[in-house]
Amino acid sequence: MSTIPVSHRVLIFDEYNGPLEVRQFPVPEPEDDELLVKLEYSGICHSDLHAWCGDFAFATVYPLIGGHEGAGRVVKMGAKVKDWKLGDLAGVKLVNDNCLNCEYCKTGNEPLCDRSRMYGFIRHGMFQEYVTIRDVDTIRIPDGMSLAAAAPVLCGGVTAYKALQETNVKAGQIVVITGAGGGLGSFAIQYAKAMGMRVVAVDHSSKKYHCEQLGAEWFVDGFETNDIADHIRKITNGGPHGVVSFASSKKPMEQALEYIRKRGTVVLVGLPKDSKILVDTTPLIFNALTIKGSVIGSRLDTDEAMDFVFRGAVKVPLEFVKLEDVPNVYEKMKKGLVTSRVVVDFSL
Amino acid sequence: MSTIPVSHRVLIFDEYNGPLEVRQFPVPEPEDDELLVKLEYSGICHSDLHAWCGDFAFATVYPLIGGHEGAGRVVKMGAKVKDWKLGDLAGVKLVNDNCLNCEYCKTGNEPLCDRSRMYGFIRHGMFQEYVTIRDVDTIRIPDGMSLAAAAPVLCGGVTAYKALQETNVKAGQIVVITGAGGGLGSFAIQYAKAMGMRVVAVDHSSKKYHCEQLGAEWFVDGFETNDIADHIRKITNGGPHGVVSFASSKKPMEQALEYIRKRGTVVLVGLPKDSKILVDTTPLIFNALTIKGSVIGSRLDTDEAMDFVFRGAVKVPLEFVKLEDVPNVYEKMKKGLVTSRVVVDFSL
Amino acid sequence: MSTIPVSHRVLIFDEYNGPLEVRQFPVPEPEDDELLVKLEYSGICHSDLHAWCGDFAFATVYPLIGGHEGAGRVVKMGAKVKDWKLGDLAGVKLVNDNCLNCEYCKTGNEPLCDRSRMYGFIRHGMFQEYVTIRDVDTIRIPDGMSLAAAAPVLCGGVTAYKALQETNVKAGQIVVITGAGGGLGSFAIQYAKAMGMRVVAVDHSSKKYHCEQLGAEWFVDGFETNDIADHIRKITNGGPHGVVSFASSKKPMEQALEYIRKRGTVVLVGLPKDSKILVDTTPLIFNALTIKGSVIGSRLDTDEAMDFVFRGAVKVPLEFVKLEDVPNVYEKMKKGLVTSRVVVDFSL
Amino acid sequence: MSTIPVSHRVLIFDEYNGPLEVRQFPVPEPEDDELLVKLEYSGICHSDLHAWCGDFAFATVYPLIGGHEGAGRVVKMGAKVKDWKLGDLAGVKLVNDNCLNCEYCKTGNEPLCDRSRMYGFIRHGMFQEYVTIRDVDTIRIPDGMSLAAAAPVLCGGVTAYKALQETNVKAGQIVVITGAGGGLGSFAIQYAKAMGMRVVAVDHSSKKYHCEQLGAEWFVDGFETNDIADHIRKITNGGPHGVVSFASSKKPMEQALEYIRKRGTVVLVGLPKDSKILVDTTPLIFNALTIKGSVIGSRLDTDEAMDFVFRGAVKVPLEFVKLEDVPNVYEKMKKGLVTSRVVVDFSL
Repeated sequence: MSTIPVSHRVLIFDEYNGPLEVRQFPVPEPEDDELLVKLEYSGICHSDLHAWCGDFAFATVYPLIGGHEGAGRVVKMGAKVKDWKLGDLAGVKLVNDNCLNCEYCKTGNEPLCDRSRMYGFIRHGMFQEYVTIRDVDTIRIPDGMSLAAAAPVLCGGVTAYKALQETNVKAGQIVVITGAGGGLGSFAIQYAKAMGMRVVAVDHSSKKYHCEQLGAEWFVDGFETNDIADHIRKITNGGPHGVVSFASSKKPMEQALEYIRKRGTVVLVGLPKDSKILVDTTPLIFNALTIKGSVIGSRLDTDEAMDFVFRGAVKVPLEFVKLEDVPNVYEKMKKGLVTSRVVVDFSL
Repeated sequence: MSTIPVSHRVLIFDEYNGPLEVRQFPVPEPEDDELLVKLEYSGICHSDLHAWCGDFAFATVYPLIGGHEGAGRVVKMGAKVKDWKLGDLAGVKLVNDNCLNCEYCKTGNEPLCDRSRMYGFIRHGMFQEYVTIRDVDTIRIPDGMSLAAAAPVLCGGVTAYKALQETNVKAGQIVVITGAGGGLGSFAIQYAKAMGMRVVAVDHSSKKYHCEQLGAEWFVDGFETNDIADHIRKITNGGPHGVVSFASSKKPMEQALEYIRKRGTVVLVGLPKDSKILVDTTPLIFNALTIKGSVIGSRLDTDEAMDFVFRGAVKVPLEFVKLEDVPNVYEKMKKGLVTSRVVVDFSL
Repeated sequence: MSTIPVSHRVLIFDEYNGPLEVRQFPVPEPEDDELLVKLEYSGICHSDLHAWCGDFAFATVYPLIGGHEGAGRVVKMGAKVKDWKLGDLAGVKLVNDNCLNCEYCKTGNEPLCDRSRMYGFIRHGMFQEYVTIRDVDTIRIPDGMSLAAAAPVLCGGVTAYKALQETNVKAGQIVVITGAGGGLGSFAIQYAKAMGMRVVAVDHSSKKYHCEQLGAEWFVDGFETNDIADHIRKITNGGPHGVVSFASSKKPMEQALEYIRKRGTVVLVGLPKDSKILVDTTPLIFNALTIKGSVIGSRLDTDEAMDFVFRGAVKVPLEFVKLEDVPNVYEKMKKGLVTSRVVVDFSL
Repeated sequence: MSTIPVSHRVLIFDEYNGPLEVRQFPVPEPEDDELLVKLEYSGICHSDLHAWCGDFAFATVYPLIGGHEGAGRVVKMGAKVKDWKLGDLAGVKLVNDNCLNCEYCKTGNEPLCDRSRMYGFIRHGMFQEYVTIRDVDTIRIPDGMSLAAAAPVLCGGVTAYKALQETNVKAGQIVVITGAGGGLGSFAIQYAKAMGMRVVAVDHSSKKYHCEQLGAEWFVDGFETNDIADHIRKITNGGPHGVVSFASSKKPMEQALEYIRKRGTVVLVGLPKDSKILVDTTPLIFNALTIKGSVIGSRLDTDEAMDFVFRGAVKVPLEFVKLEDVPNVYEKMKKGLVTSRVVVDFSL
């Protein structure tokens, strides 16, 4: 293991939409219960773009080092750390510093803890070479796993996996995934398959081949299909048992409530622009439907999501860039030109 | 057991809002797999009024004998009936004739079966002295139970009980019941208590004493309270774990999504006028909330709901009327003057 | 559809271990709520052998036509049958005639119903060309499915599938299957895979290749491995999350309680000779373990198990024999020489 | 708040069964993430007696300060403690120091964590005036709650509550509690009632009145009743839905498997002398039964159990003694003379 330098490179912005610059910062020192992780890869998520743009102004600060999908190795440990050793593979994720003792932390819902802090949003994140993190918050990446593949699981993968679990769809039953061709959707198709679910992918027709390659049994053009609700009910023989809605517009959410099977569950992940959707309570009540919101998963969810990727049951198509390239990636994201998972490779 | 007459009294209407007349009809003959039940009591439900008014025109027919909460005794049986005997106490409910072999019937969701028929809506119901019913659809009323108390459980009681179950609120946790002072709400307060839940009753201030007598731990005036969401979050220390919404207007439904505890469940039973509510997906997603619709319960739910009343854990305040009085009761219902559970007593 | 003959061939025995003879019997007439099914295939199960031998003397009668995995087509229907039509593919299974209205029937546990009767055990079974069955008891075989493949699902397949469900093992977690190379085990390996579980197969070393071909990730020799509990804990990194024990001897059952993961579940299906096992309550309590018995599945379980085979996710290696060959198959079974699923083909 | 002294009184033994002496020890200093709690009450549990006797030699050490039900107030805090303040009511329980990041800790099963340490067993416990404890391990006792009533909940109460939850018995269903008149049983009767369960108490006839006072609906003499299994099946109309077995002998455990309702669950808590019981797999399999072991509950379980006592739904009959009296209490326990919950009151 190489020695730890005094300073390291970070990518930081001083105001929303301001310049994203690489600067030298002192390498942080881990506290007693913290690890110092030398990151090798850091995934770039759409919400990093939003944090930079100030779209989540209520939940972000600046100056800010973004990034919340960091994968690396433990290079230093606080005096009280017990369950880690130098060289261990470690994942650093969005939600940390939760209290571990409230009703949410104690039920595996730690992202709902009032005290949790989002790395890359309200404190510095993973677009830096070294990061400190509390030992209990750190995700253990299995020995021998590709750190590049692990990084995007820490937010994108686990969010998709968690949403699928929230549907309560059993192996052998059918789930519709909207926005199936995007980053979360591509994860979700694969996780659903690996969990034995049958997948209907809904997206723009250009994503058909991509979704089918990942394992979708049916593809539905979400933009050109006439009476999409009727079509989906037909191909699924009465509607899917669950829906995971990654599409961030109202129409697909409201449509989901039309085609979902009686007693089925629609899980919303993507946020539409003005946030409000119109729900017709008549089918909701008479068909005994469920609507659920799902946030990023817990540490347990992350471990499980990680294991599917480690075992090769879920594959992540990656594109590597340098830390300096993040601004370019943001520009591409704005234009909708990013389809694979882009990851900063700190060795480049 | 008295002999079965050739004809009996029924209360029928020939068109929506038309006269409700008592006429003599032939007593029906049970088929091979049917029971003939001599009703002693028949509950009057708000939806009977709606069926007469044609408010559910899509789901009702005429001429129609209404009523769907019938309690009586088995007086004749078809040749193939195996599990019943003459004199058994029997409950006849709304949803019957379901196929018993579809995915809904086989998961205890028989009210969702495509083939189920609603007695008192699309075929004659329980405002008659004798009724035939398939053996498997008939609810077994425990020996020794008051038939008068049993009648309203068959729709009102089980609907309240089922909705509470759908909240997934555990014993010791808190449930808010809106419309708590009404018929369903009065059942729900008591069922919730008997299941170990702690109850916040929400209704008009005139219902305060009534709700507290039934077991509500807190009462909230749903009309006069300033910032009701904030108030409920405070008294429940972070919001209730579940909400059962019997109130049939939008505002209380939308408010429920504001005060529900993180990870909590709002169960909608009452239908607002134009049926649509506006759901803000931001708290739904970030607080991981669940919204569910709940219909009338299954046969199993009915058995369980019945047992609570049988054991005295839930009490039903009753008012008795003659069959001829049903039209008067409807008029009172229209004016909101009916607070107790009104039951036709066929011996009057 | 060919005309229905007056008489048909049945395979019957007059006393335990007595001659198994093919005789001509009148074709039965369906009652009002029954189907007449012309069987094309009838699976031969180990318990058919036991019924003939009188091993279940408490639960069987004679003279008896055995068999409880019948697959064919509806050729005649009683007057009140509503949800079937001539030509529909139909599966006839072991447990029928249950009451449909008790606490077990209403919770999807109809094999526990006091009134249920076992076809091929206490009334004539499926080693005959035509069989009558109540409409609600009949399993709907999907249009286009191979009837030969469907037959063994009706007992063997669903028993394996149900036992796996009872483990509560999630996709991505590990299940040990003992007796993995036998009929039930071969089903179970495939169902487990299709449900996303990871499989440790335990059996005689001669079954290694077979089990791995079916999808087992690990194979453990259940007879020659030193300290099998320690070995399984090691390869599964702390023990499997669930065990399904098809092996019908005590040792593997008692071993399962040694290697099961903390908080794990051991599901027993196979019956050891004298039926009693010794359970050490210390690990049971301190490791919070669960032991469950599992019987044949419900109609719902059967539908689900059938669908996996229909979709090709589970494959059944079949061997076809004539009705007259059943006695030979029994002899081979006695000697442990039957490895594939043997099915009577009535066209032979 | 009084000042913290330099030394305090502890009750310690130097070898199994050796003298239990009160000595002066230095008051410990909390580490950064620890609280210093000044105990006001400390419950005396049967397992404290066992620890002193060396009955759990594998799991205990000496010299040892016993006790694992401590209730007091926070009087000093480490530098990094965030969620507590001086004067907060605090409960100190048996299982602590678990890793918070393993699969057990992350699923609310922290007593199964490999790293957890038992206070009063393998490090000093609560028979001392001041104790240090990690903030995340400390149970928050509600403001205004009696600390004396809180103490016994920390082991006895939560163990009873947890076992009941493990039965999966619903409100309105029936649970049998064996050893119902003892400490755990007395808690369990009340918790069961408060959760809406109906209780059959089984114990020596001398406990009949006691059990009925606490809320048992039926009492069964576990020693004198002829064919107890038959009797319990009769009074419960087919057997109870669940059993919690606190009795620490084989017979009641084996009997439970005879009278449990089909599909029911038997939860074992009490350990019989030689630990092994004989389980008949025939009823286990054909009646689809479940046997589970249950250990002490998690922090979440403890919070929930505490809340029932705080609200007065569960009452704890207490007897107070001085620290010096613990040896006398042990002697009484050995003779079976302790029926109420004995608590050390440090102010005496």
